[in-house]
Amino acid sequence: MTNNYFIHSDKAKLLCTAILKGVGVDEKDAAIVADNLVTAELRGIGSHGLSRMLVYCERIVNGFINTKPNVKILKEDGSSLLIDGDNGVGQVIGLKAMDMCIQKASKTNISMCTVKNGCHFGIAAYYAMRALEQDMIGIALTNAPSTMCPWGSITPMLGTNPFCFAIPAGSHRPIVLDCATSVVARGKVVLADKENKPIPEGWALDKMGRITTDASEALKGSVLPFGNYKGSGISLIIDILCSMLSGANFGQHIGELYNNSETYQNLGFFFAAINIRNFTDPVLFKQRIDNMIDEIKQSEKASDIEEIYVPGEIEFNNEEINRISGIKVGAGVFNDLVSLVNKYSPQINPYELVISR
Amino acid sequence: MTNNYFIHSDKAKLLCTAILKGVGVDEKDAAIVADNLVTAELRGIGSHGLSRMLVYCERIVNGFINTKPNVKILKEDGSSLLIDGDNGVGQVIGLKAMDMCIQKASKTNISMCTVKNGCHFGIAAYYAMRALEQDMIGIALTNAPSTMCPWGSITPMLGTNPFCFAIPAGSHRPIVLDCATSVVARGKVVLADKENKPIPEGWALDKMGRITTDASEALKGSVLPFGNYKGSGISLIIDILCSMLSGANFGQHIGELYNNSETYQNLGFFFAAINIRNFTDPVLFKQRIDNMIDEIKQSEKASDIEEIYVPGEIEFNNEEINRISGIKVGAGVFNDLVSLVNKYSPQINPYELVISR
Repeated sequence: MTNNYFIHSDKAKLLCTAILKGVGVDEKDAAIVADNLVTAELRGIGSHGLSRMLVYCERIVNGFINTKPNVKILKEDGSSLLIDGDNGVGQVIGLKAMDMCIQKASKTNISMCTVKNGCHFGIAAYYAMRALEQDMIGIALTNAPSTMCPWGSITPMLGTNPFCFAIPAGSHRPIVLDCATSVVARGKVVLADKENKPIPEGWALDKMGRITTDASEALKGSVLPFGNYKGSGISLIIDILCSMLSGANFGQHIGELYNNSETYQNLGFFFAAINIRNFTDPVLFKQRIDNMIDEIKQSEKASDIEEIYVPGEIEFNNEEINRISGIKVGAGVFNDLVSLVNKYSPQINPYELVISR
Repeated sequence: MTNNYFIHSDKAKLLCTAILKGVGVDEKDAAIVADNLVTAELRGIGSHGLSRMLVYCERIVNGFINTKPNVKILKEDGSSLLIDGDNGVGQVIGLKAMDMCIQKASKTNISMCTVKNGCHFGIAAYYAMRALEQDMIGIALTNAPSTMCPWGSITPMLGTNPFCFAIPAGSHRPIVLDCATSVVARGKVVLADKENKPIPEGWALDKMGRITTDASEALKGSVLPFGNYKGSGISLIIDILCSMLSGANFGQHIGELYNNSETYQNLGFFFAAINIRNFTDPVLFKQRIDNMIDEIKQSEKASDIEEIYVPGEIEFNNEEINRISGIKVGAGVFNDLVSLVNKYSPQINPYELVISR
């Protein structure tokens, strides 16, 4: 039986902030990264949560994430922004860039922002959802290291490049569609491999490009895009929007996150904000979104379905539960955090932060 | 054996223009619709080609497509445009709106445009590709009548809402990703039903929401979104971008194209244009796109693959062939055109336009 530790989200943020401060990140920036990772955990996206602390700290210590980045605007004109992230922590760059994008949209109705010299920024929803409070639609994209093949190829040249659209609602919670362009996150294949379990057909290819149910063969190969050639195409377009406008790396040229002590990642991000009030009355917009959600949720369910969920709803439900029960941290990740805290912030006793296990 | 007629694309445009003039569309507007439908045929997208002439003419004659629309800007500010299509022919509204969007992006770097009171506009690529000559990225979306169920529901409340992204390249042809959000176009199910053939599992559900391989049961039910819940989510976001900002109909409220002599469609469109030169040098951008295409096309092929295609490449190849051989029109569609021409433009002898059969 796997041991899980439950930690209150606020305590988890304290822990991550302290560790990141210990490796040299400014307190304010450390708090942003901690908030991003804990938000992922609250939303039930453990693959983008505390498990990333170890690799972030390694890359910071090795000098491949810049703790004092000079995030600056390279070009600003009309409704567009081009930003150099200076290889800072992805969350810090991403948040600054998205907030500048939102600020710009408040003046020119819409805005698009593209970023070069980025690093892994966690969940895309974290950025897109910033737009919601301003009655804006938020869009966040990033490219990622190559683990997926373009359709027809057996060479991984595409990331599982995720996309997020966040849409404000009225009495309902917002619609937030946040997806990778692979069938499933590669993290699930990693997990199956660790547990010596087969993976379902359709998740991944081996290195010869054959469909495989062997997780370890899949890790040597590639994950499959969602929706076959259509998902492959969407991943390519995301790569283009993130890399080609900004000058970030694309495709195979993107630096790995893991096992890479040689290069920066130089990821690209793409953000957009659409100011609803310049098209229509935001109150009316949100009423109509509420109607849309009501119609969908009240429609006839398929026989094996208990409830129809709109995009983002499951994550909001997770958040409600996890805010009370605490976020669930597996033993492996908890042990990593114990090592990190012992090394970089020994004044904290991580076991004291645990609610239950 | 099915009889096919091959018609040179220029002659096919003449034919369609003459018929549309005959039902009251202005010559210039008729030529736009003809160009759009023939472009689809050239690109090998017969489902969005000449087969649509009959229903367009029916809807015009019945008064549910406005031949003299007053397409006007309702709101223009910063980088955004809100347009009333006045229920004109979709292609005429779409082209005007996209061109206004491109014009605006030339001043403010980027632009987004949303349209209400739209009708079926044909292939989305027709609009997105307008941006290419200006060294812009073009985006075109439309919602569509409900034929697809939100994930978990068995009520069709989503269209097969297509999306197109057009990206300029240098020496290569542009990257053009134009997809419906269903696994396959509903037209393929219609075709299988006509030919009494089964459809592959995974294309469609019957009206009880069960997977079916019976095309006629599928037509009473719904088509499946590509990539399961992810495609369903993308279709929903497209519906929102098209309808909620503009005030167009959404979901089930969208008027049918076929068998609907009661209402306008009131579709919504969403267009965007991104001016590359305000982010980076377009020459450099296009060189990097060329490199990306080269890397993908030269990568190792899967064992059953003869060539790796980037999005849009197959359509450009089709166009090269069809410009010479003529577009292929099935006997059923040809007979419809003969009836239409006899009724609305009897001075033309459609048989004289045929290259071969």
